[in-house]
Amino acid sequence: MSEQKLPSRAEDFSEWYNQVILRAELADYAPVRGCMVIRPLGYALWENIQRALDQRFKAVGVENAYFPLFIPQSFLEKEKKHIEGFSPELAVVTIGGGETLEEPLVVRPTSETIIGHMWEKWIKSYRDLPVRLNLWNSVVRWELRTRLFLRTLEFLWNEGHCAYATYGEAEAESRLMLDVYADFAENEAAVPVFKGRKTESERFPGADQTYSIEAMMGDRKALQAGTSHNLGQNFARSFDIKYLDKNNQQQHCWTTSWGLSTRFIGAIIMVHGDDQGLIMPPRLAPFQAVIVPIFKNDEDKAKVMEAVQRIRAELLAADIRLKVDEREGLSPGFKYNDWEMRGVPVRIEVGPKDVEKGTVALARRDRPGKEGKSFVPQAGLAPVVTQLLIDLQQSLYDRALAFRTANTYDPKDYAEFKSAVEKGFAFSYWCGDGQCEAEIKEETKATTRCIPVDGQPASPGVCIHCGKPAKEKAIFAKAY
Amino acid sequence: MSEQKLPSRAEDFSEWYNQVILRAELADYAPVRGCMVIRPLGYALWENIQRALDQRFKAVGVENAYFPLFIPQSFLEKEKKHIEGFSPELAVVTIGGGETLEEPLVVRPTSETIIGHMWEKWIKSYRDLPVRLNLWNSVVRWELRTRLFLRTLEFLWNEGHCAYATYGEAEAESRLMLDVYADFAENEAAVPVFKGRKTESERFPGADQTYSIEAMMGDRKALQAGTSHNLGQNFARSFDIKYLDKNNQQQHCWTTSWGLSTRFIGAIIMVHGDDQGLIMPPRLAPFQAVIVPIFKNDEDKAKVMEAVQRIRAELLAADIRLKVDEREGLSPGFKYNDWEMRGVPVRIEVGPKDVEKGTVALARRDRPGKEGKSFVPQAGLAPVVTQLLIDLQQSLYDRALAFRTANTYDPKDYAEFKSAVEKGFAFSYWCGDGQCEAEIKEETKATTRCIPVDGQPASPGVCIHCGKPAKEKAIFAKAY
Repeated sequence: MSEQKLPSRAEDFSEWYNQVILRAELADYAPVRGCMVIRPLGYALWENIQRALDQRFKAVGVENAYFPLFIPQSFLEKEKKHIEGFSPELAVVTIGGGETLEEPLVVRPTSETIIGHMWEKWIKSYRDLPVRLNLWNSVVRWELRTRLFLRTLEFLWNEGHCAYATYGEAEAESRLMLDVYADFAENEAAVPVFKGRKTESERFPGADQTYSIEAMMGDRKALQAGTSHNLGQNFARSFDIKYLDKNNQQQHCWTTSWGLSTRFIGAIIMVHGDDQGLIMPPRLAPFQAVIVPIFKNDEDKAKVMEAVQRIRAELLAADIRLKVDEREGLSPGFKYNDWEMRGVPVRIEVGPKDVEKGTVALARRDRPGKEGKSFVPQAGLAPVVTQLLIDLQQSLYDRALAFRTANTYDPKDYAEFKSAVEKGFAFSYWCGDGQCEAEIKEETKATTRCIPVDGQPASPGVCIHCGKPAKEKAIFAKAY
Repeated sequence: MSEQKLPSRAEDFSEWYNQVILRAELADYAPVRGCMVIRPLGYALWENIQRALDQRFKAVGVENAYFPLFIPQSFLEKEKKHIEGFSPELAVVTIGGGETLEEPLVVRPTSETIIGHMWEKWIKSYRDLPVRLNLWNSVVRWELRTRLFLRTLEFLWNEGHCAYATYGEAEAESRLMLDVYADFAENEAAVPVFKGRKTESERFPGADQTYSIEAMMGDRKALQAGTSHNLGQNFARSFDIKYLDKNNQQQHCWTTSWGLSTRFIGAIIMVHGDDQGLIMPPRLAPFQAVIVPIFKNDEDKAKVMEAVQRIRAELLAADIRLKVDEREGLSPGFKYNDWEMRGVPVRIEVGPKDVEKGTVALARRDRPGKEGKSFVPQAGLAPVVTQLLIDLQQSLYDRALAFRTANTYDPKDYAEFKSAVEKGFAFSYWCGDGQCEAEIKEETKATTRCIPVDGQPASPGVCIHCGKPAKEKAIFAKAY
């Protein structure tokens, strides 16, 4: 970790973001443009995200599988809107084993097409349905402007793919997975989200309906943090995915897909972080607590380390993910800053005086300085730390929700709307017309993030931009 | 599952292998030559393999990370032997975002080079060492002759990469990971392995030393099932990976790498499977037991399902991975065959008579037919099944070891050697000369699998082929 001070979030949020990632050693720039290396701390966070999601997927009956990295280019062309959306973003393998390939292979940007091809073979009868698969893999999209975690050429994600006999089941699945993502975001990552429907212009290429969760970052911009698509029969028709129903009639399937990526790590950084660095939500933190032993001589060292080993064993037994910082030649102050940068929720300081008094100093990461520090007995420390982690998790969520609430506006007219989207989210009536939406974007750089499924007004109103009748309100914001 | 009979292992081992994979729905052929789709049962097996290995890696202090899929082609050329070994096998991306790339990108065949590039940046001082990383990812090697799991264009694996200050530590690490793989193979997969050193001709391109675990398949051919490489300073020199030692001198690091792939699933199939299909080792089996309810009318159904639900809850509480086969319209006999094909270790049959008697029928997969069937009380079933799974795991290992022992020969002369490698492994003195090794391969199609680290004779002997003095014995076999 460099000794140089981190830029503050207020002075340069974007540079703060990049520096936090590099200094906390979450990730680094790869030698290939737009790609990143995810370092152990960042990857451990991703593993915890995966575990939290994977449990939820399996609990509702989804099974994991693996589909190939390479897709014949012709597959993508079978679904018209899909290829229109993805063709500018493809990485293409043209040489294999020293020979030019007859048909170029696309590095998967997403797997709907190759899954469609296999389903055509596997699904024969209503008895084969539903099929509910999830893949943990990486995908490649040739992005031009990239940012660590937020937009990279290659990213890690989950992609879920389901096939159903009826429209109703497919729609229910896409809504269920939206709920799963929102539950994960709020209860694991402490990131409040708006769940909603995307407008036509913001839909996944080839979807009938796209749902998303949208979060407010620390700079009050929006981040789309997970999506769930009802693909209707579009892919089923393009790939001839049919089943024989109970009346012996051939029917096309109804399919869905849903994904959440390493981009979510960007959300965690930007929602919770402060001028000292990262703040990891305890439920996902690779290390929930760090113990820093403090001593100046061998006599003190022996005393302190005896206490540290005892505390360590007690906390590990209470399933607290723990690190003991035994690095030599570094001052306690350096270590405090280092672990603050890395976002460890709770720091436990143990020095010779603490040993004498039978106490430790506890510092909670969300309240830097004296306010967040307390001195507690070593006896019974594990339940105290466990409770502190629960409190801290809740406090991060409450703070993020309060911030979002304070920066979400209900503008009275378009002038107010324009100023609202300069400083946060606007929740406003919109007529539903794509042309009107495009004008708003052109004039304000704010996009429709989603039409929330919750919190809609009881009665219709008029569009914030064109004044025409409007049935629903949408979230408008500048976005990543 | 098709009703057609599986070819027997004796009549066509190769076709038996392919058919088992397809019918058990472990995997399927992908639309891209040489690639496969890993279906839920196969992927769940892989997840259990990953879990068993990942725990072992973390227990010895290795951390997971992620490195990019794409590597600049020039990186591979920096290590001479590495590029010689891999250049015929590369998949190359030449087009990105619709444009021809200035420098083509190789789809990673393995990550030594890109990791070397990053280490040059990250490693500065002896304080930064050791670095011990592991990646779970997929790699691509443009193989010409492919087989499901055994040799595919793309495969999933772990690749571990470590950097050390000294030769001794690097050598110890490569031996440690060899032991980890052997422990996994024998104690989780019930696959006995020879641990040993590869000869120069069989080494990883760019390694000073390669160690491998070698297993005997059901057709008595060998399968290399995991490798661990001491890369010396070869990659450190090519990528300028240096650290400042305690005396303030610049030193090159010593690096290692080690990997185990989805190929191991092929080993599990070929070591344990029988003419009825797969046999999953209980510790890795996605489902350790399946309950098949049997009834002909609604009255019986109610009685049977009441018992089944009770048994189900009891077994789940004992952490037994369980499936209840409630599919309608399929006969019990069909279900038995189906789960035998899929290799579920224990089958529990519950019919109306069992309910009356308070018993169930237990069938163990490793002993098909009456011999493996027993009738046991429903009361206290969970500990009985738990013990049966332990016994079955041991029995699979014992059987595989006995088979290997019976088919491993100590030939007296080259004539006996030639016949030995036609029917199994030969464990024979070898002079260590590459020319001699090449002649053996040319004449018998058998290769040196490894020079075992255990079980070497106390005194030297003479080479089985050329008669020159030989210090060690090697395992020779035809191999996958």
